[in-house]
Amino acid sequence: MLIVVYVFSALIIALAFFYAYQLIQWVKQQKNENAEVARIAGLIRSGADAFMRKEYLILALFAGVMAVLIFLFLPRPVWIQESIGKNLQMAICYILGTIFSAVAGKIGIFVAALANARCAEAAQEDIKPAFLIGFRGGAVMGLVVVALCLLGVMGVMIFVGDASVLLSFSFGASSLALFAKAGGGIFTKTADVSADLAGKVELGIPEDDPRNPAVIADNVGDNVGDVAGMGADLFDSNVATMAAALVMATATGMSAKSPAMVFCYAALGLLASIAGIYLCDIKEGGSPTKALNMSTYTATGIFLALTALATLIFGFEWRYWAASAVGLLVGVVIGLATNFFTDDNMPIVRKVAKASAAGPAFTILSGVSYGFLSALPSMIGIALSALIAHRLGGMFGIAMAAVGMLSIVGTIISNDAYGPIVDNARGLAEMGGLGEDAIRVADELDSAGNTVKAVTKGFAVGAAGLTVISLLGAFLEEVNEVIIRLGGTVEHLIKGFDIMDPSVFFGVLVGAAIPAVFSAMLILGVDKNAQRMIAEIRRQFTEIEGLAEGKEGVEPDYNRCIDIATTGALRELIPAGLIAIVATILVGFIGGVPAIGGYLLGNIAVGLLLALFLSNSGGIWDNSKKYVEAGNEGGRGSDAHKAAVIGDTVGDPFKDTAGPSINTQITVVSLVASLLAQVFVSIHLF
Amino acid sequence: MLIVVYVFSALIIALAFFYAYQLIQWVKQQKNENAEVARIAGLIRSGADAFMRKEYLILALFAGVMAVLIFLFLPRPVWIQESIGKNLQMAICYILGTIFSAVAGKIGIFVAALANARCAEAAQEDIKPAFLIGFRGGAVMGLVVVALCLLGVMGVMIFVGDASVLLSFSFGASSLALFAKAGGGIFTKTADVSADLAGKVELGIPEDDPRNPAVIADNVGDNVGDVAGMGADLFDSNVATMAAALVMATATGMSAKSPAMVFCYAALGLLASIAGIYLCDIKEGGSPTKALNMSTYTATGIFLALTALATLIFGFEWRYWAASAVGLLVGVVIGLATNFFTDDNMPIVRKVAKASAAGPAFTILSGVSYGFLSALPSMIGIALSALIAHRLGGMFGIAMAAVGMLSIVGTIISNDAYGPIVDNARGLAEMGGLGEDAIRVADELDSAGNTVKAVTKGFAVGAAGLTVISLLGAFLEEVNEVIIRLGGTVEHLIKGFDIMDPSVFFGVLVGAAIPAVFSAMLILGVDKNAQRMIAEIRRQFTEIEGLAEGKEGVEPDYNRCIDIATTGALRELIPAGLIAIVATILVGFIGGVPAIGGYLLGNIAVGLLLALFLSNSGGIWDNSKKYVEAGNEGGRGSDAHKAAVIGDTVGDPFKDTAGPSINTQITVVSLVASLLAQVFVSIHLF
Repeated sequence: MLIVVYVFSALIIALAFFYAYQLIQWVKQQKNENAEVARIAGLIRSGADAFMRKEYLILALFAGVMAVLIFLFLPRPVWIQESIGKNLQMAICYILGTIFSAVAGKIGIFVAALANARCAEAAQEDIKPAFLIGFRGGAVMGLVVVALCLLGVMGVMIFVGDASVLLSFSFGASSLALFAKAGGGIFTKTADVSADLAGKVELGIPEDDPRNPAVIADNVGDNVGDVAGMGADLFDSNVATMAAALVMATATGMSAKSPAMVFCYAALGLLASIAGIYLCDIKEGGSPTKALNMSTYTATGIFLALTALATLIFGFEWRYWAASAVGLLVGVVIGLATNFFTDDNMPIVRKVAKASAAGPAFTILSGVSYGFLSALPSMIGIALSALIAHRLGGMFGIAMAAVGMLSIVGTIISNDAYGPIVDNARGLAEMGGLGEDAIRVADELDSAGNTVKAVTKGFAVGAAGLTVISLLGAFLEEVNEVIIRLGGTVEHLIKGFDIMDPSVFFGVLVGAAIPAVFSAMLILGVDKNAQRMIAEIRRQFTEIEGLAEGKEGVEPDYNRCIDIATTGALRELIPAGLIAIVATILVGFIGGVPAIGGYLLGNIAVGLLLALFLSNSGGIWDNSKKYVEAGNEGGRGSDAHKAAVIGDTVGDPFKDTAGPSINTQITVVSLVASLLAQVFVSIHLF
Repeated sequence: MLIVVYVFSALIIALAFFYAYQLIQWVKQQKNENAEVARIAGLIRSGADAFMRKEYLILALFAGVMAVLIFLFLPRPVWIQESIGKNLQMAICYILGTIFSAVAGKIGIFVAALANARCAEAAQEDIKPAFLIGFRGGAVMGLVVVALCLLGVMGVMIFVGDASVLLSFSFGASSLALFAKAGGGIFTKTADVSADLAGKVELGIPEDDPRNPAVIADNVGDNVGDVAGMGADLFDSNVATMAAALVMATATGMSAKSPAMVFCYAALGLLASIAGIYLCDIKEGGSPTKALNMSTYTATGIFLALTALATLIFGFEWRYWAASAVGLLVGVVIGLATNFFTDDNMPIVRKVAKASAAGPAFTILSGVSYGFLSALPSMIGIALSALIAHRLGGMFGIAMAAVGMLSIVGTIISNDAYGPIVDNARGLAEMGGLGEDAIRVADELDSAGNTVKAVTKGFAVGAAGLTVISLLGAFLEEVNEVIIRLGGTVEHLIKGFDIMDPSVFFGVLVGAAIPAVFSAMLILGVDKNAQRMIAEIRRQFTEIEGLAEGKEGVEPDYNRCIDIATTGALRELIPAGLIAIVATILVGFIGGVPAIGGYLLGNIAVGLLLALFLSNSGGIWDNSKKYVEAGNEGGRGSDAHKAAVIGDTVGDPFKDTAGPSINTQITVVSLVASLLAQVFVSIHLF
C-alpha cells in the first residue's frame, strides 16, 4: 500500500508544482508599467537578494561545520565499525534539509518581488485585482513549501528507508529556519523601528517616504522576515511533524499501514490547500479578510472529507483520523481565540487603545496583561487536544493531531505571505506616487493581512506545540533504540520521565528559562542593531546635501542601511541560537537523559506560553495603534496616539522577531536532544 | 529527643518575643516631638488600620466559609464514620493559620507606624540614629513572624501530632498571604501610580506633597503592601516549608530523629537571626546598604555554625546539614545575582538608562529583555540546589534545603520591613517640613532599602521555589496515604508523574498558563483601580477650593482615596485568586492525580520564571530612573528621564503587585491540591 500512497503523493506534489508555476505565470502577466514603481521594486528585490546571499553564505559555513560534526559523530562515532554509511546518510540528509528549505525561501522571495509591484499598480483599479495578485503571489510560496517538504521527506524514506535519518533532514530545515526566522526577524524590525523613529518621529516625514535611507531596508525586511522567514518556519514545523510521526509509525508494534497513513494525510492536506487556493475569490469591493479566512475554512472542510474517504478506502484506523481532526479543529479554535484578542473590532484592542489615553505606561501594562491572558485559551487548546489525541491513539495519536493541524499549512503560508506582498505594495504605491486611491486600497489589503496574520500565527504556535510534543516522543524512541543497541534489554528501556526525579526537575527549571533568555537576546539584538541604523540615518540626513529637503535627483544611500541591518542581524542571532544549543548539551551532560526529558518539557511549556504572549501582545499594540489612527480616542496626534505608537514599537520585536522565533528554538533544541541521544545515554555527571 | 528540641525551641521563641518587646520599647523612647509629623503619621496609621480592618473583615468571611468547607470535606467527608474529630482539627488549624499570620501583620504595622515618625525626626540629626530606628522597627516584624510561625507549627505538632493537619494550618497562612500580599500589592500600587500621575505629572507638584489627596494612601500602601504583605508572604513560605518537611519527616521509613532536626534547625535559624539583628550596627555616616547586608551574612554564618554544632551533639545526619547549607548558600548566590541586575552601580541598570535616551519604547524593550535574562541564574541556582539536595537526602533533602534557605528569614523580613519604614520617614520629612538635610538622609536610607529589597526578593523567590518542590513531594505523600486508606496496596501507590503521560502533560500546559493569567489580572486590577483614583484626585483638585494653590487650612479628603484603594484592591484580587483555585480543581477533575502533578510542575516552573522576571525588571526600571535622576543621561527633565519614569510606572505593579504575589499563588495552589488529594484520587474524567 505504501507504494500506492507514494505514487499518489507524487502526483499531488507534481500538481502543486504545476499549479504554482501557473500562478507565477499569471502574476507575471499582470500590468507592470510604472517605471518608478518598477525601479523601487528593483531596489527592494536587490536588497532582499543581498541579505539572502549573505545569510545563505553564513548558513553554508554553519551547515558545513554541522555536517562534518554529524558525519563524525551521529548516530555513532564514525570510527565504530559499520557506522560510516549511516553517518554519511545523516550528513547528506542534513545538507538536503537546509537546501530544500533555502530553495523554498528563495522562490517565495522571487514571487513576492514580482507580485508587490503588480499589486500596487492593480490597486489603482480596484480591490479585487490587487487582492488576487497578493493572494496568488503568496499562494506560490504556500504550495512550494509544502510540496518541497513532502518531496524531501518522501525522498529520504524511499532512498534511505529509516525514519531516524529524517530527524537529520529535519534538523537541516530547522537550522535554516533559525537563520531565516530569527535573523530575518531581527533584520525586519531593525529596519522598521529605525525608519519609524529616525524618519517619522524625529524628522516628521511620512511612512514609506523615499527620502528615508531606511525605507528600502524596511520593505526588504517584510520580505526576508515574513515571506522567507515564516516559510522556513513552517517548512521546519511541517518536516519535524512528519519526521516525528514517521519515527513513531515505524517503531515496533505499530501497524504496517501507519507510515502510509502519515503520507496519505499529508498529501491530502496539500490537495486541500490547492483546492482552497483555487476556490479563493473576492467580489468587487468585497472584504479581503473574509476571502482569506474563507480559503482556510474551505481547505479545512476538504481535508476532513478527503481523509475520511481515504480512511474508508485504505482501511486506516478511524481513531487516527479522529486525532487529526481534533488537531485541525483545535487549530481553528486557537485561531479564533487569537482573533478575539487581536482584532480591532473586538473589545480587547479597544480597551488597550482607551488605556493609552492615560499615558504610555498604561498602554504597556494593559498590553502585557492581555497578552498574558490571551495565552490561556491556546494553552488549554493544545493541552486538551494532546490529551484527547493521546486517548485516541497514544503518542502516535498526538503526532497525527499535529499532522492534522499542519495539514492545511499550504493555505496558512499563502495567507501569511500575502501580508508582506500587500505591505510592500502599499510602500510602492506611496513611493511611486500612485495616488490616494491606490494607497487606500493597499491599506485595506494590508489591514486584512495583519488581522489574518494574528490567526495564522496562533495556528503556527499550536502546531508547533503538538509537533514538539511528538518530538518528545521521538526523543524517547531514539533513546530506547540506543539502549537496545548498547545491549540493554526491555527492563533497561526508559518508560518516561518522572517529574519527582530530581534530574528531570532540574531539567524542567533550566529548560523553562531558555525561551526567555533566547527571546531577550533577540529583542536586545534588534535594540542594538536599531541604534546603529538610527545613527546611520541621522548621518545621511546631515551629510547628504538636499536629502532632507527632497531635492530632485538626491537619493539616500539605501544600501548602507540594508548592509547594517544584514550584518547586525546575523551577528546578534548567532549567540542567541548558540546559547539554546549549548544549554541543551550542558544539561544533557549534567543530568543525562532524564534531565533532557525535563529540559524539553520546560522548554516546550514556557516556549509556547512566551510565543503566544509575545505574538499576541504585539498584535494587540499594533492594532490598537491602527484603531487610534482610524480616529478613535482622539485620533492621530493625540496623547493616546503617541502612547499607542510607543506600544507598537515595543510590540514590533515582540511579535515579529522573538515571538515567532521561539517555535524554531524549541524545534532545534528538541532535534539536538534526539540527535545526541546516544551521547547522553553514555555520558553524564549525575 | 523531640522533647528536648521542643523545650529548646520554646526558649528561643520566648527570647525572640522578649527581644522584640525590648526593641518596641526602644523605638518608643526615641524622640517624637514634631506635631505636624505626628499628625501625618497618625493619618497614615489610621489609613493602614482602615485597610486592614476591611481586609480582615473580608478575610474573616472567606476564612469562615473555607473553614466550614474544610470541616465538611477534609480530609474525608465528615459523615464518614470516625472522621469528625480529624475534620474539626483541620478546620481549627486552618483558622489558627489565618489568625497567627494576621497577628504578625498587625504587630508589624503597629511598629512601622511607631518607627516611621521617629525615624524622620532622627534623620534631622544623622544617618546612624535614623538607620537604627528603621532597622530595629523592621526587626520586630522579622522576629515576630518567625517566632509565631515556629510557635504555631510546634503547637499543632504537640496538640494534634499529625503533620498532615499542618497543611491545613499552612493553607490558612496562605489564604491570609494571598489577601495581604496581592490585595496589599494592588492597594500600594494603585496609590503610588495615581499619586505620581495625577500629582507629579499632571499638576507638577513634588512627590509626597500634602496637597495631593493620594499622598496618605501612598504611604499607607508602603505599610500594607510591603510590611504586612511581605511579612504574610514569608510567614506563609516558612510555614509551608516546615509543613512539607514535617510531612516527609514523619513518613514511614524516615529516621525518628527527622522531625526533631527540622525543629532544631528552624529554631537555630531564629536564634541566628536574633544574633544578626543584635549585632547590626552602623558607623556615623556609614553605608546603610552594607550594614543591612552584613546582618544577613552574620546570620548566615551563625546559622551554619550552630546547626553544625547541633548536628554533632544530637547526632543528626550530616547529609541533611549539607542540604540545608546548600539551600542557604544558593539563596545568597541568587541574592547576589539579583543584585547584579538591579543595582545601579552595575552595568545593566545603566544600559537601560542609556537606552531610555532613545525613547520610552527602548526603556521597555531593554528592561523586559534584561528582566528575562536575570531569571536565568536564579532558575539554575534553584534547579542545581534541588538536584544536589536530592542527591544528598532525597525529597527530604530538598525540604531541608528549603528550611536552610528560609532559616535566616527573620533577618530577611527585618531588612524588608526596614524599606517601607524609611520610605514613610522620607514622606514625613517632606510633608512635616523637616528640612533638606533630613530629606537627604532619608533618601539615602530609602535607596539602601530599595537595593536590599531586590536581594531579599530574590531570596524569597528562591525559597518559595524549593518550598513548592517539597510541597510537590508532600502532595505525593498525601495521595499515597489516601490510596492506602482506600484499601490500595504497595503496587497501587503512585511513584511519580511521568511527563509522557498525557494527563501529566495536559496539567503541565494548563499549569504553565496560570501564573501568567494571575499576574495579568492583578496588573489589570491596579490599572482599573488607578483609573478610579485618578478621577477622584482630579475631582478634588477641581472641587476643593484653594487646594491646588496650597491655601492655609485647606486639606484634601485623604480618606476617600484610601477608601477607593481599599475597596478596589479587594474587589480586583478575588477573581484572580479564585481563578487559580478553580483551575486547580477543574484540572484535577479532568485528569485526576497525574494531571495535578503536572499542573503543579507547570505552575512552579512558570511561576518562578515570571516572579523573577516581574520583580527584577521592575527593580531595573526603578533604579534606572533613580540613576537618571542622579544626573546621568541628561538628568531630571531630560527625554531620558521622561522615558525612565514611564519604565518605572510599568515596573511598579510588576515588582510590587504581581511579582511577589506569584509565590503565594503557587503555595495556595499546591496546598489546595494536597488538601483535595482524596477527591482527585476518587473522581476524575480521564
